[in-house]
Amino acid sequence: MTILSSLRRASLFFRATPDSYKLLLLSSTLTLSGASLVAYSDRKQVEKKKILLLGTGWAGISFLKDLDLSSYDVQVVSPHNYFAFTPLLPSVTCGTVEARSIVEPVRNIVNKKRGEIQLWEADCVKIDPANHKVLCRPAFENDPVANQDFSLQYDFLVIAVGAQVNTFGTPGVSENCYFLKEVDDAQRIRRGVIDCFEKAVLPGLTELQRRTKLHFVIVGGGPTGVEFAAELHDFIQEDIIPIYPAVKNLVKISLIQSGDHILNMFDERISSFAEHKFLRDGIDVQTGVRVTSVSDKDISVKIKSTGEVCSIPHGLIVWSTGIATRPVIRDLMQQVGQGERRVLATDEWLRVKGCENVYAIGDCASITQRKIMEDIAMIFEVADKDKSGTLTVEEFQDVVADILVRYPQVEHFLKSKHLRNVTDLLADPEGNAKKEVDINGFKLALSEVDSQMKSLPATAQVAAQQGSYLAQCFSKMEVCKEHPEGPMRFRDGKHHQFRPFQYKHLGQFAPLGGEQAAAELPGDWVSVGRSTQWLWYSVYASKQVSWRTRALVVSDWTRRFIFGRDSSRI
Amino acid sequence: MTILSSLRRASLFFRATPDSYKLLLLSSTLTLSGASLVAYSDRKQVEKKKILLLGTGWAGISFLKDLDLSSYDVQVVSPHNYFAFTPLLPSVTCGTVEARSIVEPVRNIVNKKRGEIQLWEADCVKIDPANHKVLCRPAFENDPVANQDFSLQYDFLVIAVGAQVNTFGTPGVSENCYFLKEVDDAQRIRRGVIDCFEKAVLPGLTELQRRTKLHFVIVGGGPTGVEFAAELHDFIQEDIIPIYPAVKNLVKISLIQSGDHILNMFDERISSFAEHKFLRDGIDVQTGVRVTSVSDKDISVKIKSTGEVCSIPHGLIVWSTGIATRPVIRDLMQQVGQGERRVLATDEWLRVKGCENVYAIGDCASITQRKIMEDIAMIFEVADKDKSGTLTVEEFQDVVADILVRYPQVEHFLKSKHLRNVTDLLADPEGNAKKEVDINGFKLALSEVDSQMKSLPATAQVAAQQGSYLAQCFSKMEVCKEHPEGPMRFRDGKHHQFRPFQYKHLGQFAPLGGEQAAAELPGDWVSVGRSTQWLWYSVYASKQVSWRTRALVVSDWTRRFIFGRDSSRI
Repeated sequence: MTILSSLRRASLFFRATPDSYKLLLLSSTLTLSGASLVAYSDRKQVEKKKILLLGTGWAGISFLKDLDLSSYDVQVVSPHNYFAFTPLLPSVTCGTVEARSIVEPVRNIVNKKRGEIQLWEADCVKIDPANHKVLCRPAFENDPVANQDFSLQYDFLVIAVGAQVNTFGTPGVSENCYFLKEVDDAQRIRRGVIDCFEKAVLPGLTELQRRTKLHFVIVGGGPTGVEFAAELHDFIQEDIIPIYPAVKNLVKISLIQSGDHILNMFDERISSFAEHKFLRDGIDVQTGVRVTSVSDKDISVKIKSTGEVCSIPHGLIVWSTGIATRPVIRDLMQQVGQGERRVLATDEWLRVKGCENVYAIGDCASITQRKIMEDIAMIFEVADKDKSGTLTVEEFQDVVADILVRYPQVEHFLKSKHLRNVTDLLADPEGNAKKEVDINGFKLALSEVDSQMKSLPATAQVAAQQGSYLAQCFSKMEVCKEHPEGPMRFRDGKHHQFRPFQYKHLGQFAPLGGEQAAAELPGDWVSVGRSTQWLWYSVYASKQVSWRTRALVVSDWTRRFIFGRDSSRI
Repeated sequence: MTILSSLRRASLFFRATPDSYKLLLLSSTLTLSGASLVAYSDRKQVEKKKILLLGTGWAGISFLKDLDLSSYDVQVVSPHNYFAFTPLLPSVTCGTVEARSIVEPVRNIVNKKRGEIQLWEADCVKIDPANHKVLCRPAFENDPVANQDFSLQYDFLVIAVGAQVNTFGTPGVSENCYFLKEVDDAQRIRRGVIDCFEKAVLPGLTELQRRTKLHFVIVGGGPTGVEFAAELHDFIQEDIIPIYPAVKNLVKISLIQSGDHILNMFDERISSFAEHKFLRDGIDVQTGVRVTSVSDKDISVKIKSTGEVCSIPHGLIVWSTGIATRPVIRDLMQQVGQGERRVLATDEWLRVKGCENVYAIGDCASITQRKIMEDIAMIFEVADKDKSGTLTVEEFQDVVADILVRYPQVEHFLKSKHLRNVTDLLADPEGNAKKEVDINGFKLALSEVDSQMKSLPATAQVAAQQGSYLAQCFSKMEVCKEHPEGPMRFRDGKHHQFRPFQYKHLGQFAPLGGEQAAAELPGDWVSVGRSTQWLWYSVYASKQVSWRTRALVVSDWTRRFIFGRDSSRI
C-alpha cells in the first residue's frame, strides 16, 4: 500500500506541476518505479470533483486558464460565451478598436489546454450553498424550448459574476444613460454618438437644439470616465468634425465628478496633469458636482460647495461612477449571514465567509483581512516558546515569516514607516532595540499595524490575480493537504493549507487622448506624456488573451493611424 | 457676346471633363483667351440646380462618386449614413469578413471630391412629382426633437432607394425569418447562428430538440442564398464544430428552391457543379419545393411534383427569394399612372415615365426598352432618303449606327443568330444579300429582333453602371444641350441629348465554399474551382469603394486564414 500511495503522491504532484517540468518529472518517475504507468492510468479512476464556475470575466477566465482541467470536472455558467478585454472598452466606444478585436470565445481559450469544460450561456439566478446547488436561467427569453431554468450541483463553487453599475439610486439613470461595462454597452455608445451628429445636422432644428444634441456628458471622473472623455474628444476632433463641418462649433463635452479632482485614486500629479490636458482640449471638467436626477432631455446637478442646483440639457450621457453588488450575490449574502454588509466578504483564501466550498473572485466580492490585533495574544503565546512571559527578539524572529504572510498589513506598515526589519517594531520610541517585550509591549508595538489594511480596487488586475491564485490552489489541493504551504495557524500551531492571496500591484494607466497617457507604476513611479502612451500600447497588446485578439488590436491601432476611425452608423 | 458664350462653353466643357485632362485644358484655355479667369469666376454666379438623391446604395453612391458636385447643389436623403458593399454580406453573416470592413461613410466618399453635399439620415416617405417635393422622416423614432418630418424641394430627383425583400405574401415570413439585405441583417444572422449552438448545448434538451435547434434552412437558391449556405457550412465545419464537439452530428443545412435547379440564372454547368458540391458537403438541396407558411417552430413546404405538404422543424431560417417594390415607390407609381405595373418603369435614359425631371436607378426601377417594331415605319421613312419606297443597303447603312444605339436588342439578336453585320438582316432566307427591300421586307427582316429584349437583373453591377451613367449625363447636361450626343430621334430627325443607358455585363460570381467558386464571365466563359475563388478575391478587393475598406477586407480574409472566424456572440 505504501508503494501505491507514494505513486499516488507522485501522480498528484505531477498534475500540479507546470508543463515545462513534466518531461523531467516523467523520466524521474520512471526511474523511481516501474509501475509508474499504473499511477498514470490510475488517475482516471479517481472520481473527479465538480467545480462550477459562474462568470467568464477577468477573474473567471484567468481561473480557467490556470486550472489543471484534467483533475476536475469543470462546468461554467456565463451570460456570455466570450471573454472581453474590458480595459479596451473605452476604445471600442469610438472605434479606435473594434468590439470583435477584444473578445475571445471561452471555448477557444479553454480548448488550448488539456481537458474540457462544459459552458452554458445562462444567468445564475440563485445560489443555494446549503444544498450545494445553483439555479440558472438561459439567456434566450423568447424561445420556449431553450428558456427552461436548470439547476446544477457542485463540489466547489467559484463565483466570478462581477458587479453591476452603481446608480446610487439616482432617478432616471437606468432609463436615460449609457453605461460602459459590457461590450454591447460600448457598441451602443458608438451608435449613440453618431446618432447625435446625424440628429444635429437635420433640417429644421434651432441652433440651441443642435447644441443640445451635441452636448456629451460623462458622469464619473474615474479611469473609465476619463478615458472615454479623451477618446470621444479625439474621435470628434480627428474624424467627425472633418465630415460634419457645419456643426463644428456646437460640440461640447462635459465631465462631471463629485469629488474634488478627477482620477483621484491616482497620484495627484497625474490628476492635475489630466485636468490641465482636458482644459486645453476644451473638455469642461466640473468637480464637486453631484447628479441628482436625469431625464431624456436634462441632467440635474447640485454644486456641492454652493448648494446651487441646475439643469443642463444633454444629447448623450455616459454613466461611469462605480460598481454595486448584483441581486444574486445580495441574495446569497442574506443566506450566509452577510445581509448587513455592502459587499460579499471572503477570507484571504477567497473563501466566502459563512459557507463551505464556495469561493468568490473579482469584483463580486471583497477580501476581509484578518486584524493582527485579534490574534495578538495567541501569537505571543506561540512565539513565547520558553513560556517566560516575555518575547525575545530571537523568539519573535522565529514567527516573523508566518506573521508577514498571514498579515500582509505588517509589511505595508513597515514600508510606510520606512522600517527595514520587522524586529525594528520592537524598538522603543527612541529607536533603541529592545532585548525582549512582554505582552503589553508586544501589543503596543503592533498596535498601529492594522491601520494599513486596504481593500483592493475593483480592477481587472486584481480579478485576474485572484483567478490565477485560486486555480493554483485547486491544482495543488491534494498535495497541499499533506504538505501545507501556508503560514502557521497560531490558534492550533498547525499550518494553513495554502498561502493567503496576496495582490501584487503592477501599476495603472490612464490614457488621456491625443497620444498622451499617464501611468502610476510600481514603486510610486509616475509617468506622463507621449512615451507613456506607447508604453500603454505595448502593455495592452502583450496582455491580450490570445494571439488572434493581439493581432486584431494591433491592426486596429494601425488602421486608425492610417485611415482614422469609422463613423458609419452600424 | 460671342466671346462670352464661347468662354461659357469652354468653362462648361471644363467642368464635364475628367480631372486628368484639366491641366492640359487649363493651359489651352489660357492661350485661347486672356479672359479665361472671368469664365472661371463666372461659374459661381450661375444659380446651381438642386439635385435630390434618395438612397446611398450601389446606384446612389456611384452616382455621387461620378457627379461633378461643383455644378449642382446636391442633397442626399438615406436611412443610412454609410455605403455597404452588399456582395460581401453573406461573408459577414459568418464572420469571414467583419461588418465594419464593408461599410464606408457617405460623407467620406464624397469629401474626396471637389464640392460638398448635404446628407440627412432619414427615410423618404412620400414623393410628390407634381410639386417637385419629397417628404422625409428622420430615423430617430424616440426623439421628439429629431423625429420631425421635413420636406425638400428639387430641380432633379434621383431615386435610388433600392427594393425590399419579397415574401410573396407567405404567412409568418416577416416574423420568423432572417433576411439578408442590410448590414444589420447579416449581423443578426451571425448572432442567430451562434445562439442556435448555445441553445443546442444547454442541459435538459432532448436529442430531437437539439437537432431542431441546429437545423438551418435557407429559402431561395439564388446567388445570395447559395453563398450563404456555403459560408454557413464552412463556418460550422471549420470553426464551430471543433469547439462544440458534443453536437457535431446533429447539424443540418437545408436549401429550399422552388425552381428545378439552384443558381438557375447561371449557366447550367455552374448550377450542376454547385448542386454536386453541396451534395458532397452534406447540404440538403430541395428543388421544386415551395414554402407555404412559416412559424417560429416549423416551416411548411409543398413539393410541387407530388403536391405533398410537409412541415419541418427548424432552428433558423434565412429568406432570400427576390425583391419587391417599396411602398414609397408604389405610391409614386400610382401618382404617375404606373399603378398597374409591378415595377417602376423608366425609359432608356433612366427617366421615370410619367413625370418630369425624376430619375430612377438601381433595384427600385426597371428600364422599359423601346421596341423597334413600334418605330419601324418611321425608321423606314427616314432611312429612305430618296423616297423611292424601297431601302437600299447603302441607305440602311446610313442609319445603322443610330439603330444600334437606340435599340440595343438588335445587337443581341445579331449575336444570337451569329450574324456579323446588320445588313445581313436584309438577306433572304437562303442567306443571299438583297440589294433593296420595301417596307414589308424591312418589317420582316427586323420582326424577330424585339424578342431579344431582356430586363436587367437586380444586381450591384447594374445599379453601379446606372448611377455612373446618370452622373455623367448630369455632368455634361449643358454641353449636350447644344451638342447632343445621342442617336437620331426618327420621329423628328433630331438627336437625343444623350446616348441611352447600355448595360455592360462583366460577369458574375457564385462562391460555393471550401475555397471554391463558380463564375460566368463575359463571352459565355464559365470557370469553376479554386482558381475562380482567387479570382473572386481579387475582383472583390479591387471593387472596394475606398482604400480603407480594401485594406480591411483583405486583412479580414488573412485573419480568417490564420485564426479562423470568431464565434463570440456579440
